[in-house]
Amino acid sequence: MESPLAARVRSGDVRASARLMRALDDRLPGADSVLRELFPHTGRAQVVGITGPPGAGKSSLAARLIAHHRGSGRSVGVVAVDPTSPFTGGAILGDRIRMQDHALDAGVFIRSLATRGHLGGLSRSAADVVAVMDAMGKDVILVETVGVGQDEVEVASLAHTVVVVWVPGLGDEVQALKAGVLEIADVLALNKADREGADRALRDLGALLKLRRAVQREPGWEPPIVSTVAIRDQGTAELSAAIAGHRAYLEKSGEGQARAARRARSAFLGRLRERLLDGALDRLEREEGPLDEVAVRIAARQQDPYRLADELAARLPRGAGERP
Amino acid sequence: MESPLAARVRSGDVRASARLMRALDDRLPGADSVLRELFPHTGRAQVVGITGPPGAGKSSLAARLIAHHRGSGRSVGVVAVDPTSPFTGGAILGDRIRMQDHALDAGVFIRSLATRGHLGGLSRSAADVVAVMDAMGKDVILVETVGVGQDEVEVASLAHTVVVVWVPGLGDEVQALKAGVLEIADVLALNKADREGADRALRDLGALLKLRRAVQREPGWEPPIVSTVAIRDQGTAELSAAIAGHRAYLEKSGEGQARAARRARSAFLGRLRERLLDGALDRLEREEGPLDEVAVRIAARQQDPYRLADELAARLPRGAGERP
Repeated sequence: MESPLAARVRSGDVRASARLMRALDDRLPGADSVLRELFPHTGRAQVVGITGPPGAGKSSLAARLIAHHRGSGRSVGVVAVDPTSPFTGGAILGDRIRMQDHALDAGVFIRSLATRGHLGGLSRSAADVVAVMDAMGKDVILVETVGVGQDEVEVASLAHTVVVVWVPGLGDEVQALKAGVLEIADVLALNKADREGADRALRDLGALLKLRRAVQREPGWEPPIVSTVAIRDQGTAELSAAIAGHRAYLEKSGEGQARAARRARSAFLGRLRERLLDGALDRLEREEGPLDEVAVRIAARQQDPYRLADELAARLPRGAGERP
Repeated sequence: MESPLAARVRSGDVRASARLMRALDDRLPGADSVLRELFPHTGRAQVVGITGPPGAGKSSLAARLIAHHRGSGRSVGVVAVDPTSPFTGGAILGDRIRMQDHALDAGVFIRSLATRGHLGGLSRSAADVVAVMDAMGKDVILVETVGVGQDEVEVASLAHTVVVVWVPGLGDEVQALKAGVLEIADVLALNKADREGADRALRDLGALLKLRRAVQREPGWEPPIVSTVAIRDQGTAELSAAIAGHRAYLEKSGEGQARAARRARSAFLGRLRERLLDGALDRLEREEGPLDEVAVRIAARQQDPYRLADELAARLPRGAGERP
């Protein structure tokens, strides 16, 4: 029997879906079982990651892509995990393109995630939100992250296609991040391409792609570079075509399935890790007292955290028929 | 009986310590047991986090602090987890202050960590390196991270004192990160303070600190703001004094012990999580086959990852005397 909440999410109900997302965020009991009910109905949406340094114009490009998809009748979900995004940071940045306009469009669902101190990790939270939007029946889900750090790489791994947004004239220090960000790029957008330095930036990106090709063991996908000027809506169609091209490549080459397996692997491991920890901490509290008091004893070097962790983990029985 | 490797690390042997760090990085069997041997001999070093946006001059400031401590006869360890740091990125940035000079000084031990795709998480790796340097007898350990994202906040939580480095004239988007970074600041360094806009930046930081005070429930430490010009070695003594002042506050107020307990808690949980997962994956592979094949079945929606994770975790026996 499907629960009423799962049924409402599957019908695309915005309020029910937002409620489930909050419940998942707050780790309310029961929220997980709804996610589990929805699982067979996920895996249909096209998930597109949009990443790059602060100020590259990721949100403006996202807004253009939303308008593009809406114009073709596709429903869109947006997950914003970029602390500088107008989706997240909101009015303080004076977002010129009024993202909130889309909030009045029932075909667009926007959800922002805090990037700091998030219980259970940012990628787990983003994955949950993507799963709910997927089950809602969203055709396209955009995941916007600022392209610095490991979190963002993990979040990017949720996407079928990762668009890295670059701009001309970034300082040397930010340039140094480029190699790392480029590793995860399926499509490159050089935004603000009407700015001085665009030609040089295009040459630089081209040279880096050549380098990437040279170290690749087998020929695969070659990320196209698309010039865009998001605030004037230039290059949006080309960018959409490049994303669609990568999607077609994923299907034809079998790489799409390989990536789906990698995503499933990482989601499963995240879930398993959480469940194991919950169980072990229950037992720790019963046997050793509150975790905070154990921490005080460890800090005072009165208790050995290595032995304690090893003992708790060793209690896992070796196999189904065996005794601990 | 202490192992020869642990004894050599404790004597401050650089080659043995580097070997142990590599072994921990590679998750070699036995490396963990050395860390466990060293545990009672850790907790003595003063750990100082240095964070801030790319280009703020964190490495230059770190170099000045190194020179300052060396001048007072203190040994120094440096853990660089900033992809734009000259410690990490090296020569490509044309580091003006030759950090590598310190490499010839036996009292300084520098270790860089990759920030991407790190097995087991960046904060675990950084914590291991800090523990080894601590056991080596380093008096001061500087941990340099780029101040964006959750990883960096986690790494910063290793430190007794967090120095946030700021510079005049950052763009609006980077400014938006400020509130988040300020939350973790114990000391603020306005570097490049001879630049235009320094007065405004000082006013802005002052206003933010006032805001922070207003929302604080109880009076605590008020982060001092120190103006520095690292490349001309201006403000280094003041910055060191501010860090020492925070250290004295931690000791006097009891806040130092509370923070030590929080650090111990998070290190223990990290270890426990890893041990539990290792055990559960062993069993999964025996019962369900290789993880990668399980992932393929999950991706095809043929296997339920929620049920699988819950079942593996439920096998944890409830208590010492009970049967699973």
